[in-house]
Amino acid sequence: MAEPLVQRAADWFHALQDRICAALTDLDGGGSFREDHWTRSGGGGGRSRVLERGGLFEKAGVNVSDVHGELPAEIAGSTPGSGRAFRATGISLVLHPASPMIPTVHANFRCLAKGDATWFGGGGDLTPCYPYREDVVHFHRTWKAVCDAHDPTYYPRFKQACDEYFFLPHRGETRGVGGIFFDYLQDDLERTFDFVRAAGDAFVPAYVPIAERRRDEPFGPRERDFQLHRRGRYVEFNLLYDRGTLFGLKTGGRIESILMSLPPEVRWSYAYLPEPESREAELSRYLVATDWLGEPNI
Amino acid sequence: MAEPLVQRAADWFHALQDRICAALTDLDGGGSFREDHWTRSGGGGGRSRVLERGGLFEKAGVNVSDVHGELPAEIAGSTPGSGRAFRATGISLVLHPASPMIPTVHANFRCLAKGDATWFGGGGDLTPCYPYREDVVHFHRTWKAVCDAHDPTYYPRFKQACDEYFFLPHRGETRGVGGIFFDYLQDDLERTFDFVRAAGDAFVPAYVPIAERRRDEPFGPRERDFQLHRRGRYVEFNLLYDRGTLFGLKTGGRIESILMSLPPEVRWSYAYLPEPESREAELSRYLVATDWLGEPNI
Repeated sequence: MAEPLVQRAADWFHALQDRICAALTDLDGGGSFREDHWTRSGGGGGRSRVLERGGLFEKAGVNVSDVHGELPAEIAGSTPGSGRAFRATGISLVLHPASPMIPTVHANFRCLAKGDATWFGGGGDLTPCYPYREDVVHFHRTWKAVCDAHDPTYYPRFKQACDEYFFLPHRGETRGVGGIFFDYLQDDLERTFDFVRAAGDAFVPAYVPIAERRRDEPFGPRERDFQLHRRGRYVEFNLLYDRGTLFGLKTGGRIESILMSLPPEVRWSYAYLPEPESREAELSRYLVATDWLGEPNI
Repeated sequence: MAEPLVQRAADWFHALQDRICAALTDLDGGGSFREDHWTRSGGGGGRSRVLERGGLFEKAGVNVSDVHGELPAEIAGSTPGSGRAFRATGISLVLHPASPMIPTVHANFRCLAKGDATWFGGGGDLTPCYPYREDVVHFHRTWKAVCDAHDPTYYPRFKQACDEYFFLPHRGETRGVGGIFFDYLQDDLERTFDFVRAAGDAFVPAYVPIAERRRDEPFGPRERDFQLHRRGRYVEFNLLYDRGTLFGLKTGGRIESILMSLPPEVRWSYAYLPEPESREAELSRYLVATDWLGEPNI
Protein backbone atom coordinates (compact mmCIF):
# COMPACT_ATOMS: atom_id res chain seq x y z
CA MET A 1 0.00 0.00 0.00
CA ALA A 2 1.29 3.42 -0.90
CA GLU A 3 2.33 5.60 2.01
CA PRO A 4 0.25 8.73 2.57
CA LEU A 5 1.77 11.84 1.07
CA VAL A 6 2.17 13.52 4.44
CA GLN A 7 4.32 10.58 5.60
CA ARG A 8 6.50 10.79 2.52
CA ALA A 9 6.79 14.53 3.07
CA ALA A 10 7.84 13.96 6.70
CA ASP A 11 10.52 11.50 5.62
CA TRP A 12 11.76 13.89 2.99
CA PHE A 13 11.89 16.84 5.41
CA HIS A 14 14.02 14.79 7.80
CA ALA A 15 16.45 13.94 5.01
CA LEU A 16 16.54 17.59 3.93
CA GLN A 17 17.34 18.61 7.51
CA ASP A 18 20.36 16.28 7.39
CA ARG A 19 21.61 17.77 4.12
CA ILE A 20 21.06 21.39 5.17
CA CYS A 21 22.71 20.90 8.55
CA ALA A 22 25.71 19.28 6.88
CA ALA A 23 26.05 22.22 4.48
CA LEU A 24 25.65 24.76 7.28
CA THR A 25 28.18 22.98 9.50
CA ASP A 26 30.67 23.19 6.61
CA LEU A 27 29.84 26.84 6.10
CA ASP A 28 30.10 27.65 9.78
CA GLY A 29 33.53 26.08 10.07
CA GLY A 30 33.52 26.16 13.87
CA GLY A 31 30.33 25.12 15.62
CA SER A 32 28.20 22.03 15.52
CA PHE A 33 24.50 21.37 15.80
CA ARG A 34 23.04 20.19 19.06
CA GLU A 35 20.08 17.87 18.50
CA ASP A 36 16.96 17.58 20.65
CA HIS A 37 14.12 15.16 20.14
CA TRP A 38 10.83 16.21 21.62
CA THR A 39 7.35 14.81 21.80
CA ARG A 40 4.10 16.72 21.81
CA SER A 41 1.52 15.75 24.42
CA GLY A 42 -1.26 15.99 21.81
CA GLY A 43 0.59 13.69 19.38
CA GLY A 44 3.83 13.60 17.40
CA GLY A 45 6.97 15.58 18.00
CA GLY A 46 10.10 16.85 16.37
CA ARG A 47 13.84 16.93 15.92
CA SER A 48 15.38 20.32 16.65
CA ARG A 49 18.93 21.21 15.74
CA VAL A 50 20.55 24.38 16.94
CA LEU A 51 24.08 25.69 16.54
CA GLU A 52 25.05 28.62 18.76
CA ARG A 53 28.19 30.76 18.91
CA GLY A 54 29.77 29.05 15.92
CA GLY A 55 32.38 30.33 13.49
CA LEU A 56 29.88 32.13 11.29
CA PHE A 57 26.50 31.73 12.96
CA GLU A 58 25.61 33.35 16.23
CA LYS A 59 22.49 31.18 16.30
CA ALA A 60 21.21 28.80 13.65
CA GLY A 61 18.16 26.60 14.10
CA VAL A 62 16.96 23.91 11.70
CA ASN A 63 13.89 22.13 13.02
CA VAL A 64 11.73 19.32 11.71
CA SER A 65 8.40 18.52 13.27
CA ASP A 66 5.68 16.00 12.59
CA VAL A 67 2.65 16.52 14.79
CA HIS A 68 -0.92 15.30 14.75
CA GLY A 69 -4.09 15.43 16.80
CA GLU A 70 -7.02 17.79 16.99
CA LEU A 71 -6.73 21.41 15.92
CA PRO A 72 -8.13 24.08 18.25
CA ALA A 73 -11.57 25.13 16.91
CA GLU A 74 -10.42 28.68 16.08
CA ILE A 75 -7.69 27.34 13.80
CA ALA A 76 -9.71 24.43 12.38
CA GLY A 77 -12.40 26.85 11.23
CA SER A 78 -9.99 28.89 9.14
CA THR A 79 -8.05 26.09 7.40
CA PRO A 80 -9.04 23.82 4.48
CA GLY A 81 -10.43 20.34 5.02
CA SER A 82 -13.17 18.84 7.12
CA GLY A 83 -13.18 18.25 10.86
CA ARG A 84 -10.38 19.02 13.30
CA ALA A 85 -8.10 15.99 13.04
CA PHE A 86 -4.82 17.02 11.45
CA ARG A 87 -1.26 16.05 10.76
CA ALA A 88 1.36 18.69 10.05
CA THR A 89 4.97 18.13 9.15
CA GLY A 90 7.58 20.61 8.11
CA ILE A 91 11.08 21.92 8.22
CA SER A 92 11.76 25.40 9.49
CA LEU A 93 15.06 27.19 9.69
CA VAL A 94 16.25 30.59 10.81
CA LEU A 95 19.92 31.54 10.63
CA HIS A 96 21.36 34.52 12.48
CA PRO A 97 24.99 35.10 11.42
CA ALA A 98 27.31 36.87 13.85
CA SER A 99 28.47 39.28 11.15
CA PRO A 100 26.10 42.14 10.29
CA MET A 101 27.40 41.87 6.74
CA ILE A 102 25.83 38.42 6.25
CA PRO A 103 22.04 38.41 5.95
CA THR A 104 19.70 36.62 8.30
CA VAL A 105 17.63 34.06 6.44
CA HIS A 106 14.49 32.03 7.01
CA ALA A 107 13.01 29.12 5.12
CA ASN A 108 10.16 26.76 5.81
CA PHE A 109 8.49 23.93 3.93
CA ARG A 110 5.48 22.10 5.26
CA CYS A 111 2.73 19.62 4.44
CA LEU A 112 -0.59 19.57 6.24
CA ALA A 113 -3.40 17.06 6.11
CA LYS A 114 -6.77 17.78 7.65
CA GLY A 115 -9.90 15.73 6.97
CA ASP A 116 -10.21 15.40 3.20
CA ALA A 117 -7.60 18.07 2.39
CA THR A 118 -3.82 17.96 2.02
CA TRP A 119 -1.75 20.97 1.12
CA PHE A 120 1.78 22.34 1.01
CA GLY A 121 3.17 25.67 2.09
CA GLY A 122 6.58 27.22 2.44
CA GLY A 123 9.11 29.68 1.16
CA GLY A 124 12.35 31.43 1.91
CA ASP A 125 13.18 35.06 2.59
CA LEU A 126 16.33 37.07 3.15
CA THR A 127 16.86 39.82 5.73
CA PRO A 128 20.11 41.76 5.25
CA CYS A 129 21.32 44.63 7.44
CA TYR A 130 23.82 45.83 4.83
CA PRO A 131 22.30 44.77 1.54
CA TYR A 132 24.27 44.09 -1.62
CA ARG A 133 22.14 44.19 -4.72
CA GLU A 134 23.93 41.24 -6.31
CA ASP A 135 23.13 39.09 -3.26
CA VAL A 136 19.47 39.98 -3.43
CA VAL A 137 19.39 39.22 -7.16
CA HIS A 138 21.15 35.89 -6.62
CA PHE A 139 18.65 34.91 -3.93
CA HIS A 140 15.64 35.78 -6.10
CA ARG A 141 17.10 34.23 -9.25
CA THR A 142 17.60 30.94 -7.47
CA TRP A 143 13.96 30.77 -6.38
CA LYS A 144 12.74 31.97 -9.75
CA ALA A 145 14.58 29.14 -11.52
CA VAL A 146 13.00 26.55 -9.22
CA CYS A 147 9.57 28.10 -9.65
CA ASP A 148 9.79 28.47 -13.42
CA ALA A 149 10.71 24.80 -13.86
CA HIS A 150 7.32 23.90 -12.35
CA ASP A 151 4.93 26.67 -13.23
CA PRO A 152 5.71 30.07 -14.79
CA THR A 153 3.02 31.72 -12.66
CA TYR A 154 4.69 30.61 -9.40
CA TYR A 155 7.53 33.09 -9.03
CA PRO A 156 5.53 36.29 -9.63
CA ARG A 157 2.72 35.08 -7.37
CA PHE A 158 4.95 33.72 -4.60
CA LYS A 159 7.30 36.70 -4.71
CA GLN A 160 4.36 39.08 -4.26
CA ALA A 161 2.90 36.92 -1.48
CA CYS A 162 6.28 37.06 0.28
CA ASP A 163 6.43 40.86 0.10
CA GLU A 164 2.89 41.06 1.45
CA TYR A 165 3.36 38.51 4.22
CA PHE A 166 6.73 39.67 5.57
CA PHE A 167 5.56 43.22 6.12
CA LEU A 168 5.51 45.24 9.35
CA PRO A 169 2.54 47.59 9.04
CA HIS A 170 3.51 49.60 12.14
CA ARG A 171 6.95 50.26 10.64
CA GLY A 172 5.73 50.61 7.06
CA GLU A 173 8.51 48.34 5.80
CA THR A 174 9.08 44.79 4.65
CA ARG A 175 11.00 42.47 6.98
CA GLY A 176 13.76 42.15 4.43
CA VAL A 177 14.19 41.81 0.69
CA GLY A 178 11.70 38.96 0.35
CA GLY A 179 11.98 35.77 -1.66
CA ILE A 180 9.03 33.44 -2.10
CA PHE A 181 6.08 32.48 0.08
CA PHE A 182 3.27 30.08 -0.76
CA ASP A 183 0.48 28.37 1.12
CA TYR A 184 -2.52 26.12 0.56
CA LEU A 185 -1.06 24.53 -2.59
CA GLN A 186 -3.58 21.70 -3.05
CA ASP A 187 -3.76 21.03 -6.78
CA ASP A 188 -1.98 18.04 -8.31
CA LEU A 189 -0.27 17.09 -5.07
CA GLU A 190 2.39 14.85 -6.64
CA ARG A 191 3.56 17.65 -8.89
CA THR A 192 3.38 20.06 -5.97
CA PHE A 193 5.48 17.72 -3.84
CA ASP A 194 8.04 17.70 -6.68
CA PHE A 195 8.09 21.48 -6.54
CA VAL A 196 8.46 21.56 -2.75
CA ARG A 197 11.37 19.12 -2.96
CA ALA A 198 13.06 21.24 -5.60
CA ALA A 199 12.51 24.38 -3.51
CA GLY A 200 13.81 22.69 -0.36
CA ASP A 201 16.94 21.65 -2.19
CA ALA A 202 17.37 25.19 -3.52
CA PHE A 203 17.83 26.68 -0.08
CA VAL A 204 21.54 25.87 0.21
CA PRO A 205 22.45 27.25 -3.25
CA ALA A 206 20.23 30.29 -2.62
CA TYR A 207 21.92 31.26 0.64
CA VAL A 208 25.36 29.72 1.10
CA PRO A 209 27.11 31.61 -1.75
CA ILE A 210 25.91 34.90 -0.23
CA ALA A 211 27.27 33.99 3.18
CA GLU A 212 30.58 32.88 1.65
CA ARG A 213 30.84 36.12 -0.30
CA ARG A 214 30.29 38.32 2.77
CA ARG A 215 32.02 36.39 5.51
CA ASP A 216 35.25 38.38 5.29
CA GLU A 217 33.67 41.84 5.01
CA PRO A 218 35.06 43.93 7.85
CA PHE A 219 32.76 45.40 10.47
CA GLY A 220 32.98 47.10 13.83
CA PRO A 221 30.83 48.32 16.72
CA ARG A 222 28.83 50.66 14.50
CA GLU A 223 27.72 47.82 12.21
CA ARG A 224 27.06 45.54 15.18
CA ASP A 225 24.86 48.20 16.77
CA PHE A 226 22.86 48.55 13.57
CA GLN A 227 22.47 44.77 13.36
CA LEU A 228 21.16 44.58 16.94
CA HIS A 229 18.57 47.26 16.19
CA ARG A 230 17.51 45.57 12.97
CA ARG A 231 17.10 42.31 14.85
CA GLY A 232 14.54 44.16 16.97
CA ARG A 233 12.38 44.47 13.87
CA TYR A 234 12.78 40.74 13.30
CA VAL A 235 11.46 40.07 16.79
CA GLU A 236 8.59 42.49 16.27
CA PHE A 237 7.52 40.67 13.12
CA ASN A 238 7.81 37.19 14.59
CA LEU A 239 5.88 37.92 17.77
CA LEU A 240 3.32 40.39 16.43
CA TYR A 241 2.49 38.94 13.01
CA ASP A 242 4.02 35.58 12.15
CA ARG A 243 1.29 32.98 11.62
CA GLY A 244 3.73 30.11 12.06
CA THR A 245 4.74 31.33 15.51
CA LEU A 246 1.13 31.81 16.59
CA PHE A 247 0.11 28.44 15.07
CA GLY A 248 2.89 26.75 17.01
CA LEU A 249 2.03 28.44 20.29
CA LYS A 250 -1.69 27.68 19.91
CA THR A 251 -1.24 24.05 18.91
CA GLY A 252 1.04 23.21 21.81
CA GLY A 253 4.27 23.05 19.85
CA ARG A 254 7.59 23.00 21.68
CA ILE A 255 8.24 26.55 22.86
CA GLU A 256 12.01 26.41 22.48
CA SER A 257 11.73 25.14 18.91
CA ILE A 258 9.19 27.79 17.96
CA LEU A 259 11.15 30.62 19.55
CA MET A 260 14.54 29.50 18.21
CA SER A 261 13.70 31.98 15.43
CA LEU A 262 14.37 34.88 17.82
CA PRO A 263 17.79 36.47 17.44
CA PRO A 264 20.41 35.80 20.13
CA GLU A 265 21.01 39.46 21.00
CA VAL A 266 18.74 42.40 20.29
CA ARG A 267 18.64 46.10 21.01
CA TRP A 268 15.81 48.64 21.13
CA SER A 269 16.66 52.32 21.51
CA TYR A 270 14.01 54.99 21.72
CA ALA A 271 13.34 56.67 18.38
CA TYR A 272 16.30 54.93 16.78
CA LEU A 273 17.09 56.35 13.36
CA PRO A 274 20.25 55.95 11.29
CA GLU A 275 22.06 59.10 10.19
CA PRO A 276 20.65 60.49 6.94
CA GLU A 277 22.65 59.46 3.85
CA SER A 278 24.55 56.82 5.84
CA ARG A 279 25.02 53.25 4.70
CA GLU A 280 22.55 52.26 7.42
CA ALA A 281 19.93 54.70 6.12
CA GLU A 282 20.29 53.13 2.69
CA LEU A 283 18.70 49.91 3.93
CA SER A 284 15.26 51.51 3.95
CA ARG A 285 15.36 51.67 0.14
CA TYR A 286 15.54 47.88 0.16
CA LEU A 287 12.59 47.45 2.50
CA VAL A 288 9.88 48.07 -0.06
CA ALA A 289 8.46 45.54 -2.51
CA THR A 290 10.87 45.65 -5.46
CA ASP A 291 11.26 43.76 -8.73
CA TRP A 292 14.78 42.54 -8.04
CA LEU A 293 15.10 40.84 -11.40
CA GLY A 294 14.07 43.88 -13.44
CA GLU A 295 16.05 47.01 -14.26
CA PRO A 296 18.12 48.06 -11.26
CA ASN A 297 16.74 51.12 -9.48
CA ILE A 298 18.98 50.62 -6.46
CA MET B 1 -19.66 74.79 32.76
CA ALA B 2 -17.88 71.86 34.34
CA GLU B 3 -15.12 70.33 32.27
CA PRO B 4 -15.71 66.78 31.09
CA LEU B 5 -14.12 64.15 33.28
CA VAL B 6 -11.82 62.93 30.53
CA GLN B 7 -10.38 66.46 30.20
CA ARG B 8 -9.77 66.68 33.94
CA ALA B 9 -8.15 63.26 33.79
CA ALA B 10 -5.89 64.36 30.93
CA ASP B 11 -4.80 67.44 32.90
CA TRP B 12 -4.14 65.35 35.95
CA PHE B 13 -2.11 62.74 34.02
CA HIS B 14 0.11 65.50 32.62
CA ALA B 15 0.74 66.84 36.13
CA LEU B 16 1.45 63.31 37.37
CA GLN B 17 3.97 62.83 34.57
CA ASP B 18 5.80 65.94 35.80
CA ARG B 19 5.91 64.67 39.37
CA ILE B 20 6.98 61.13 38.44
CA CYS B 21 9.69 62.34 36.06
CA ALA B 22 11.03 64.66 38.75
CA ALA B 23 11.19 61.79 41.25
CA LEU B 24 12.81 59.45 38.72
CA THR B 25 15.38 62.06 37.69
CA ASP B 26 16.34 62.42 41.36
CA LEU B 27 16.50 58.65 41.72
CA ASP B 28 18.55 58.22 38.56
CA GLY B 29 21.13 60.77 39.64
CA GLY B 30 22.76 60.95 36.22
CA GLY B 31 20.47 61.10 33.22
CA SER B 32 17.68 63.40 32.20
CA PHE B 33 14.43 62.94 30.32
CA ARG B 34 14.22 63.84 26.68
CA GLU B 35 10.76 65.14 25.77
CA ASP B 36 8.93 64.62 22.47
CA HIS B 37 5.56 66.05 21.57
CA TRP B 38 3.70 64.16 18.89
CA THR B 39 0.37 64.46 17.15
CA ARG B 40 -1.83 61.69 15.88
CA SER B 41 -3.22 62.02 12.37
CA GLY B 42 -6.64 60.78 13.56
CA GLY B 43 -6.77 63.35 16.39
CA GLY B 44 -4.86 64.26 19.54
CA GLY B 45 -1.32 63.35 20.47
CA GLY B 46 1.03 62.96 23.37
CA ARG B 47 4.05 63.98 25.37
CA SER B 48 6.69 61.27 25.60
CA ARG B 49 9.60 61.41 27.99
CA VAL B 50 12.45 58.96 27.81
CA LEU B 51 15.68 58.75 29.77
CA GLU B 52 18.34 56.41 28.37
CA ARG B 53 21.73 55.33 29.72
CA GLY B 54 21.29 57.21 32.97
CA GLY B 55 22.87 56.61 36.35
CA LEU B 56 20.33 53.99 37.40
CA PHE B 57 18.04 53.48 34.42
CA GLU B 58 19.17 51.90 31.21
CA LYS B 59 15.87 53.03 29.67
CA ALA B 60 12.94 54.73 31.35
CA GLY B 61 9.87 55.92 29.50
CA VAL B 62 7.01 57.97 30.98
CA ASN B 63 4.42 58.85 28.37
CA VAL B 64 1.18 60.76 28.44
CA SER B 65 -1.25 60.66 25.56
CA ASP B 66 -4.63 62.19 24.85
CA VAL B 67 -6.11 60.94 21.60
CA HIS B 68 -9.54 61.03 20.03
CA GLY B 69 -11.34 60.11 16.84
CA GLU B 70 -13.06 56.99 15.58
CA LEU B 71 -12.16 53.56 16.93
CA PRO B 72 -11.57 50.76 14.42
CA ALA B 73 -14.77 48.65 14.23
CA GLU B 74 -13.07 45.55 15.71
CA ILE B 75 -12.10 47.50 18.83
CA ALA B 76 -15.30 49.56 19.05
CA GLY B 77 -17.38 46.37 19.12
CA SER B 78 -15.58 45.00 22.16
CA THR B 79 -15.52 48.12 24.38
CA PRO B 80 -18.28 49.77 26.42
CA GLY B 81 -20.28 52.74 25.10
CA SER B 82 -22.19 53.47 21.93
CA GLY B 83 -20.77 54.30 18.51
CA ARG B 84 -17.12 54.55 17.55
CA ALA B 85 -16.20 58.10 18.55
CA PHE B 86 -13.76 57.99 21.46
CA ARG B 87 -11.30 59.94 23.55
CA ALA B 88 -8.59 58.15 25.47
CA THR B 89 -6.05 59.70 27.78
CA GLY B 90 -3.52 58.05 30.00
CA ILE B 91 -0.09 57.86 31.49
CA SER B 92 2.08 54.83 30.86
CA LEU B 93 5.51 54.14 32.20
CA VAL B 94 8.04 51.33 31.92
CA LEU B 95 11.38 51.52 33.72
CA HIS B 96 14.30 49.25 32.86
CA PRO B 97 17.10 49.72 35.40
CA ALA B 98 20.65 48.88 34.33
CA SER B 99 21.22 46.75 37.41
CA PRO B 100 19.70 43.26 37.37
CA MET B 101 19.22 43.66 41.11
CA ILE B 102 16.64 46.44 40.66
CA PRO B 103 13.27 45.29 39.32
CA THR B 104 11.73 46.46 36.08
CA VAL B 105 8.39 48.14 36.70
CA HIS B 106 5.36 49.17 34.70
CA ALA B 107 2.39 51.37 35.58
CA ASN B 108 -0.44 52.80 33.59
CA PHE B 109 -3.52 54.87 34.39
CA ARG B 110 -6.08 55.81 31.79
CA CYS B 111 -9.52 57.28 31.19
CA LEU B 112 -11.61 56.47 28.14
CA ALA B 113 -14.81 58.01 26.89
CA LYS B 114 -16.82 56.43 24.12
CA GLY B 115 -20.38 57.38 23.26
CA ASP B 116 -22.37 57.33 26.50
CA ALA B 117 -19.68 55.53 28.52
CA THR B 118 -16.64 56.74 30.46
CA TRP B 119 -14.35 54.44 32.36
CA PHE B 120 -10.97 54.16 34.06
CA GLY B 121 -8.32 51.49 33.90
CA GLY B 122 -4.80 51.06 35.13
CA GLY B 123 -2.45 49.40 37.54
CA GLY B 124 1.16 48.75 38.35
CA ASP B 125 3.24 45.57 38.34
CA LEU B 126 6.78 44.65 39.31
CA THR B 127 9.17 42.38 37.41
CA PRO B 128 12.31 41.47 39.34
CA CYS B 129 15.15 39.26 38.10
CA TYR B 130 16.53 38.70 41.58
CA PRO B 131 13.51 39.02 43.82
CA TYR B 132 13.64 40.01 47.48
CA ARG B 133 10.53 39.06 49.37
CA GLU B 134 10.51 42.29 51.37
CA ASP B 135 10.47 44.33 48.13
CA VAL B 136 7.53 42.37 46.79
CA VAL B 137 5.67 42.80 50.06
CA HIS B 138 6.39 46.53 50.10
CA PHE B 139 5.09 46.92 46.55
CA HIS B 140 1.87 45.03 47.28
CA ARG B 141 1.30 46.72 50.65
CA THR B 142 1.51 50.12 49.01
CA TRP B 143 -1.18 49.26 46.48
CA LYS B 144 -3.30 47.54 49.09
CA ALA B 145 -3.33 50.65 51.28
CA VAL B 146 -4.48 52.80 48.35
CA CYS B 147 -7.13 50.27 47.38
CA ASP B 148 -8.43 49.71 50.91
CA ALA B 149 -8.94 53.45 51.44
CA HIS B 150 -11.44 53.40 48.57
CA ASP B 151 -13.03 49.98 48.53
CA PRO B 152 -12.02 46.90 50.50
CA THR B 153 -12.90 44.65 47.55
CA TYR B 154 -10.43 46.44 45.23
CA TYR B 155 -7.10 44.96 46.28
CA PRO B 156 -8.10 41.28 46.19
CA ARG B 157 -9.90 41.75 42.87
CA PHE B 158 -7.24 43.90 41.22
CA LYS B 159 -4.39 41.76 42.53
CA GLN B 160 -5.99 38.65 41.05
CA ALA B 161 -6.70 40.46 37.76
CA CYS B 162 -3.03 41.46 37.63
CA ASP B 163 -1.83 37.88 38.11
CA GLU B 164 -4.21 36.73 35.40
CA TYR B 165 -3.40 39.48 32.92
CA PHE B 166 0.40 39.48 33.22
CA PHE B 167 0.72 35.79 32.47
CA LEU B 168 2.66 34.08 29.67
CA PRO B 169 0.69 30.93 28.84
CA HIS B 170 3.44 29.53 26.60
CA ARG B 171 5.94 29.83 29.46
CA GLY B 172 3.48 28.88 32.20
CA GLU B 173 4.64 31.77 34.36
CA THR B 174 3.56 35.26 35.41
CA ARG B 175 5.50 38.19 33.96
CA GLY B 176 6.67 39.15 37.42
CA VAL B 177 5.33 39.34 40.94
CA GLY B 178 2.21 41.29 39.99
CA GLY B 179 0.65 44.25 41.70
CA ILE B 180 -2.77 45.56 40.70
CA PHE B 181 -4.65 45.74 37.41
CA PHE B 182 -8.12 47.12 36.81
CA ASP B 183 -10.22 48.05 33.80
CA TYR B 184 -13.70 49.27 32.89
CA LEU B 185 -14.29 50.98 36.25
CA GLN B 186 -17.47 52.89 35.39
CA ASP B 187 -19.43 53.22 38.65
CA ASP B 188 -19.46 56.49 40.57
CA LEU B 189 -16.90 58.12 38.32
CA GLU B 190 -15.96 60.93 40.71
CA ARG B 191 -15.07 58.46 43.42
CA THR B 192 -13.26 56.32 40.88
CA PHE B 193 -11.25 59.33 39.70
CA ASP B 194 -10.29 59.91 43.35
CA PHE B 195 -9.05 56.35 43.50
CA VAL B 196 -7.10 56.65 40.23
CA ARG B 197 -5.42 59.83 41.50
CA ALA B 198 -4.48 58.12 44.75
CA ALA B 199 -3.12 55.12 42.83
CA GLY B 200 -1.17 57.34 40.42
CA ASP B 201 0.41 59.14 43.35
CA ALA B 202 1.27 55.81 44.97
CA PHE B 203 3.57 54.76 42.17
CA VAL B 204 6.61 56.67 43.43
CA PRO B 205 6.34 55.39 47.04
CA ALA B 206 5.62 51.86 45.71
CA TYR B 207 8.75 51.68 43.57
CA VAL B 208 11.42 54.23 44.51
CA PRO B 209 12.26 52.75 47.96
CA ILE B 210 12.87 49.36 46.30
CA ALA B 211 15.21 50.86 43.73
CA GLU B 212 17.06 52.81 46.46
CA ARG B 213 17.42 49.65 48.54
CA ARG B 214 18.92 47.62 45.68
CA ARG B 215 20.98 50.17 43.83
CA ASP B 216 24.23 49.24 45.54
CA GLU B 217 23.79 45.46 45.35
CA PRO B 218 26.83 44.07 43.53
CA PHE B 219 26.42 42.18 40.29
CA GLY B 220 28.56 40.85 37.45
CA PRO B 221 28.31 39.26 34.01
CA ARG B 222 26.37 36.28 35.33
CA GLU B 223 23.60 38.50 36.72
CA ARG B 224 23.62 40.67 33.60
CA ASP B 225 23.21 37.59 31.42
CA PHE B 226 20.24 36.43 33.48
CA GLN B 227 18.69 39.89 33.24
CA LEU B 228 19.04 39.93 29.44
CA HIS B 229 17.30 36.56 29.19
CA ARG B 230 14.52 37.62 31.54
CA ARG B 231 14.00 40.72 29.45
CA GLY B 232 13.29 38.36 26.57
CA ARG B 233 10.21 37.18 28.48
CA TYR B 234 9.19 40.82 28.90
CA VAL B 235 9.34 41.31 25.13
CA GLU B 236 7.39 38.10 24.55
CA PHE B 237 4.59 39.30 26.81
CA ASN B 238 4.42 42.80 25.38
CA LEU B 239 4.37 41.75 21.73
CA LEU B 240 2.33 38.54 22.02
CA TYR B 241 -0.26 39.42 24.65
CA ASP B 242 -0.34 43.01 25.84
CA ARG B 243 -3.68 44.63 24.99
CA GLY B 244 -2.27 48.12 25.44
CA THR B 245 0.44 47.51 22.83
CA LEU B 246 -2.04 46.06 20.36
CA PHE B 247 -4.58 48.84 21.07
CA GLY B 248 -1.88 51.43 20.39
CA LEU B 249 -0.71 49.78 17.18
CA LYS B 250 -4.28 49.37 15.88
CA THR B 251 -5.40 52.90 16.72
CA GLY B 252 -2.49 54.59 15.02
CA GLY B 253 -0.61 55.56 18.15
CA ARG B 254 3.00 56.72 17.90
CA ILE B 255 5.11 53.62 17.37
CA GLU B 256 8.14 54.85 19.30
CA SER B 257 5.99 55.75 22.31
CA ILE B 258 4.22 52.39 22.27
CA LEU B 259 7.40 50.39 21.87
CA MET B 260 9.39 52.38 24.44
CA SER B 261 8.24 49.58 26.76
CA LEU B 262 10.69 47.20 25.09
CA PRO B 263 13.94 46.68 27.00
CA PRO B 264 17.11 48.28 25.64
CA GLU B 265 19.10 45.04 25.37
CA VAL B 266 17.74 41.51 25.24
CA ARG B 267 19.08 38.00 24.81
CA TRP B 268 17.47 34.75 23.67
CA SER B 269 19.47 31.54 23.92
CA TYR B 270 18.09 28.23 22.80
CA ALA B 271 16.60 26.20 25.65
CA TYR B 272 17.94 28.62 28.22
CA LEU B 273 17.57 27.25 31.74
CA PRO B 274 19.27 28.46 34.92
CA GLU B 275 21.32 25.92 36.90
CA PRO B 276 19.14 23.95 39.32
CA GLU B 277 19.22 25.30 42.89
CA SER B 278 20.88 28.52 41.73
CA ARG B 279 19.72 31.97 42.72
CA GLU B 280 18.49 32.38 39.15
CA ALA B 281 16.44 29.18 39.36
CA GLU B 282 14.81 30.54 42.51
CA LEU B 283 13.00 33.22 40.50
CA SER B 284 10.57 30.66 39.12
CA ARG B 285 9.09 30.27 42.61
CA TYR B 286 8.09 33.92 42.41
CA LEU B 287 6.44 33.63 39.01
CA VAL B 288 3.22 32.03 40.21
CA ALA B 289 0.19 33.84 41.63
CA THR B 290 1.04 34.24 45.34
CA ASP B 291 -0.60 35.92 48.31
CA TRP B 292 2.34 38.20 49.11
CA LEU B 293 0.68 39.68 52.17
CA GLY B 294 -0.18 36.34 53.76
CA GLU B 295 2.10 33.89 55.56
CA PRO B 296 5.48 33.71 53.80
CA ASN B 297 5.98 30.51 51.85
CA ILE B 298 9.03 31.86 50.03
